[in-house]
Amino acid sequence: MPPKKYNIASIPADGIGIEVVAATIDVIEHLVKTLKTFEIEFTHFPWGTAYYKKTGEYLPDDALDVLRKFDACLFGAVGAPDVPDHISLWGLLLALRGPLQLYANVRPVRMFPGTRPRLADCKPSDIDWVLVRENSEGEYAGQGGRSHLHQPWETATEVAIFTRVGIERIMRFAFETARSRPRKFLTVVTKSNSMRNGMVLWDEIAREVARDFPDVTWDKMLVDAMTVRMVCKPASLDTIVGTNLHMDILSDLAAALAGSIGVAPSSNLDPTRRSPSIFEPVHGSAFDITGKGIANPVATIWSAGEMLRWIGEASAADVLMDALEQVCRNGVLTPDLGGTADTKSVAAAVSAEIEK
Amino acid sequence: MPPKKYNIASIPADGIGIEVVAATIDVIEHLVKTLKTFEIEFTHFPWGTAYYKKTGEYLPDDALDVLRKFDACLFGAVGAPDVPDHISLWGLLLALRGPLQLYANVRPVRMFPGTRPRLADCKPSDIDWVLVRENSEGEYAGQGGRSHLHQPWETATEVAIFTRVGIERIMRFAFETARSRPRKFLTVVTKSNSMRNGMVLWDEIAREVARDFPDVTWDKMLVDAMTVRMVCKPASLDTIVGTNLHMDILSDLAAALAGSIGVAPSSNLDPTRRSPSIFEPVHGSAFDITGKGIANPVATIWSAGEMLRWIGEASAADVLMDALEQVCRNGVLTPDLGGTADTKSVAAAVSAEIEK
Ligand SMILES: CC(C)[C@H](C(=O)O)[C@@H](O)C(=O)O
Ligand SMILES: CC(C)[C@H](C(=O)O)[C@@H](O)C(=O)O
Repeated sequence: MPPKKYNIASIPADGIGIEVVAATIDVIEHLVKTLKTFEIEFTHFPWGTAYYKKTGEYLPDDALDVLRKFDACLFGAVGAPDVPDHISLWGLLLALRGPLQLYANVRPVRMFPGTRPRLADCKPSDIDWVLVRENSEGEYAGQGGRSHLHQPWETATEVAIFTRVGIERIMRFAFETARSRPRKFLTVVTKSNSMRNGMVLWDEIAREVARDFPDVTWDKMLVDAMTVRMVCKPASLDTIVGTNLHMDILSDLAAALAGSIGVAPSSNLDPTRRSPSIFEPVHGSAFDITGKGIANPVATIWSAGEMLRWIGEASAADVLMDALEQVCRNGVLTPDLGGTADTKSVAAAVSAEIEK
Repeated sequence: MPPKKYNIASIPADGIGIEVVAATIDVIEHLVKTLKTFEIEFTHFPWGTAYYKKTGEYLPDDALDVLRKFDACLFGAVGAPDVPDHISLWGLLLALRGPLQLYANVRPVRMFPGTRPRLADCKPSDIDWVLVRENSEGEYAGQGGRSHLHQPWETATEVAIFTRVGIERIMRFAFETARSRPRKFLTVVTKSNSMRNGMVLWDEIAREVARDFPDVTWDKMLVDAMTVRMVCKPASLDTIVGTNLHMDILSDLAAALAGSIGVAPSSNLDPTRRSPSIFEPVHGSAFDITGKGIANPVATIWSAGEMLRWIGEASAADVLMDALEQVCRNGVLTPDLGGTADTKSVAAAVSAEIEK
């Protein structure tokens, strides 16, 4: 039998996204060549702000159909200084997450070797979280509008839309994630004291779904109080689930508390596996350091590790992550982590470590 | 001329709210008796969950008219284990903030003596922030609903409503607050990359209002990235303004990073002074410690200090705050701060300190 072959779409997009995806693909190709247990073919798509400036669109009309042929997608970062962020993000990233129904955004957070813990009196083992973000609706439903433009009585709305289907599937996914981890513990984040509709529905569905997971312990937090708990009692948390906006905020906070947003990975998953899942670093396109070659590739390499696990190559993912952690432990770090290495030398060090 | 007399409404409401407001009123009455430069009369209102259980309402019909006769209001905390939070909070606290148009919620945050800093490598002077929260609209407009109740296709919406008037007045207030502080520096928080209507309007109005404050430096942050900045570069921040929900979240985070939510004060201001402003601790009714007499009164005493400043008694506020800080510095602390003092002995210590 010939080795299994995976087709991966690569969308580096903008800024340092291009640099960290290139470095990551080098590492993955090296990993594949070393292990010889499977094959990967990367197909590059030039979608991003340069493409937008040429064509007037961030994505071609058939983008979703094209992507559906792939096993997964590696994404860099989108956004450029000369295009309003809501145009670029809704043009590309948010035009994929929702329409492909990648409803589970998963963000593991732990104190990665080489990062400086930010909290006083916090042991490395105190932060070992998985954040599960609803990724297809809620505050990111994209509805609302503005009326009486520029008049003194101008009004604008942002409409968050929550569905029972949408909440139930992410809640189930979160309980399953919690069940798969040693502590079997889930915290459900809402804001049902001030938001009386969708947030109350979240609470109700949490209680309903919990009945199917008697082996999982769970509790409830308000999003504001949750920030306090993350800072003051990090070890009390394990798996965390919440809305699109709440977990957008909490996942940045989590990455910062654990040491750095420069290492934080994220997976946009379709757990039904009808669409290809998209793997991307949590950080953005960072035009302030674009072109300097010093972007931290760790978040994207870690994201690629999550991708390998998702497509079924868990032992390759383990090899990759062991090498990545060893390189960070050895102090081969980019300037954002206090080191002097550049993007390419971090990637080269990971490749070298893979061979050991 | 007889000394000026202020009429203050007291609404202790629920749980530890009742305990910390009682302790604070003791301290204020002691302060007034010691200084003899003005008088204060407190009028108590029994509104809260007990009142709700008796009458079916958290507030009587004429509550707003009754309160409008007062110079200010001291509030405890609302919420009880056996009433859904959204009923109690919309019944009382949120039924006052919006309808009285207390549009500026101001939350000073600094490392208070006696609290343990949570961030590694953070000097006490690194956190000295004023958080300005839009307090009358946005995500707390209270609109939205549920349809197809309990059907598989059930849908719920939460509608955030932003008005030019609402944004402009809070933005002006925030720029004025920034101007009144030594650094004259404001950070405007939005989420205009994913929320394309109200958040973009916030950005536009920030730019417009900034023109009237050429002496104030300002910058913009996305709410998710703002959590990272608060953790990683606290000293880069000074005055911060944002929406009702964003600042609800960030103000809890800020209080936690500075040491404790148990000391965090808040002012619900009507800067036009048509309504009485409401001063309250940031913490909630905490039924887990209610009745034990160990609730931390510092947040409410500090809130009362802000109240004195607001009604025009700044030098009395200074005396109060000096005494409060000295007591905390002396280690007279409640258990939440690692001490062994109870609510009453902290209050008694502040009163004793005032006389020195
Ligand atoms: C880029 C932006 C639209 C995005 C989001 O808000 O979801 C980012 O912050 C993230 O967390 O993935
Ligand atoms: C009690 C609750 C409704 C309130 C809020 O969300 O505004 C509280 O968290 C606060 O910060 O004052």
